[in-house]
Amino acid sequence: MSKILIFGHQNPDTDAIGAAIAYANLQKALGKDAEAVALGTPSEETQYALDYFKLAAPRVISSVKEETTDVMLVDHNEFQQSVSDIAELNILAVVDHHRIANFETANPLYYRCEPVGCTSTIIFKLYKEAGIEVPQAIAGMMLSAIVSDTLLFKSPTCTPEDVTAANELAAIAQVELEVYGLAMLKAGTNLSDKSVETLIDLDAKSFTMGDKVVRVAQVNTVDLNEVFDRQADLEAVMAKENQANNYDLFLLIATDILASDSELLVIGEPVANVEKAFGTTLTNNRAFLPGVVSRKKQVVPQLTESFN
Amino acid sequence: MSKILIFGHQNPDTDAIGAAIAYANLQKALGKDAEAVALGTPSEETQYALDYFKLAAPRVISSVKEETTDVMLVDHNEFQQSVSDIAELNILAVVDHHRIANFETANPLYYRCEPVGCTSTIIFKLYKEAGIEVPQAIAGMMLSAIVSDTLLFKSPTCTPEDVTAANELAAIAQVELEVYGLAMLKAGTNLSDKSVETLIDLDAKSFTMGDKVVRVAQVNTVDLNEVFDRQADLEAVMAKENQANNYDLFLLIATDILASDSELLVIGEPVANVEKAFGTTLTNNRAFLPGVVSRKKQVVPQLTESFN
Repeated sequence: MSKILIFGHQNPDTDAIGAAIAYANLQKALGKDAEAVALGTPSEETQYALDYFKLAAPRVISSVKEETTDVMLVDHNEFQQSVSDIAELNILAVVDHHRIANFETANPLYYRCEPVGCTSTIIFKLYKEAGIEVPQAIAGMMLSAIVSDTLLFKSPTCTPEDVTAANELAAIAQVELEVYGLAMLKAGTNLSDKSVETLIDLDAKSFTMGDKVVRVAQVNTVDLNEVFDRQADLEAVMAKENQANNYDLFLLIATDILASDSELLVIGEPVANVEKAFGTTLTNNRAFLPGVVSRKKQVVPQLTESFN
Repeated sequence: MSKILIFGHQNPDTDAIGAAIAYANLQKALGKDAEAVALGTPSEETQYALDYFKLAAPRVISSVKEETTDVMLVDHNEFQQSVSDIAELNILAVVDHHRIANFETANPLYYRCEPVGCTSTIIFKLYKEAGIEVPQAIAGMMLSAIVSDTLLFKSPTCTPEDVTAANELAAIAQVELEVYGLAMLKAGTNLSDKSVETLIDLDAKSFTMGDKVVRVAQVNTVDLNEVFDRQADLEAVMAKENQANNYDLFLLIATDILASDSELLVIGEPVANVEKAFGTTLTNNRAFLPGVVSRKKQVVPQLTESFN
């Protein structure tokens, strides 16, 4: 039996890391030689959760094939969001809650995707289906992932299943859900000491839409001014990133987690598709998106449709 | 709630039709307005099963959007094997047991793929997970699908889960598994009264491999001579199909269901990739493939790798 590496997407968020830890623990309980790894270091939010539950951050890797051929993906499927040599690997399983695109295998596999708010909600279900008990710290990471992905249930991606899972996991993790959740989210909104380069890469994903490559970054904040005070610097770095990586468009979504609104900053072309997607007009490269907090549900599908 | 159409792949086999009927029945039991349809008429094998369990063949459709936008796919995911307007539809769910390729959605969905021998094995599990009872005739169709896809458990795609499911379903369907199964398989091997055009289209799928389009047809028989007595006619029609549909290669796999071997017939280019895939040399456009009965496990992955 060859070793199995389990990981979430590049620029890992709390679900990418929490789901990898939880799924690797489940696979080990089922007798597999599995290890959770990550395609980047934890964010401050994720690190808060890891510290709270006394878990080590997963080892960071950038390619797999020198170690093994067998992998399982969590919280992503699109190859451009995955490990660099993904196309050469044997993908045994995917557990995810995103759209499926730019994903291909030569062999049948286990693929479990459900339209819920968080991968960890599905993984909790897989523990139950397998009859495996969830350890306290693992429950804490899965809870943290659900809080993170659903912004404490405020995101439109949140489903009743996520709320139920989070409550059950909070009991196992022995934390008070609202108190722990808000403290964890706030730990991730400390932007002031970060460079603009870091800020636009904290939680960024690339998408192929029509014949364009679109980069969509998101930052959470409790004060939008903290982001847009540095608009000129952000624009310069986004333009530089577009050129360096052949992105056609770079979108930064700054999300106010208390008000549940976002402000959009756009650099690149064609902006007309962005305006069409959100039914808005950009002013000074910006647009206010009332009620928008979810990249997956309120940004990517609208953009994808606008490019098709 | 808009109507949901549920269907399997083009050139439907017994799983494509049986799984669609079973999954539509499950969705209806869960309160959805679902209808099983098909992308073609039943084979003689499938018709035997439908007649035995007194079920009507699903209505045949060739496009969806004039009726509804919402669909669920069973037993396939690759768009070129699906309904003509699949790219314009909203795919709510996929239940499948094949590799994933040429599949893309704009939105998150329910996707359940497991590396088992038959879609109906997974659908039987979904009934159990939902706590819904399986009616006798539906159990009969799911059983028929498992027998068909695994060639009565002889295919290397067959897993212990398929065997267990088939035995449970046979009990619900009130049939003797081996007796019913062999009778159904034999009903599908009556090739003598079929034109070569029909024969190469009974169970044929297209695959994109590298930059080539490869058509892979399979026929089951109890006598390989019955197929290859008509080799010259088969070659002429396969060449014509290549030209008409821009296939680069056409492979016909004639499978002896009693001996569990296959004989391959190949028309088109590049044949070198076919020879490499199976470690064989074609003679008179043919090669004997001992022990090969599964297109999915013993043909498509080997070809795909040879083209990459």
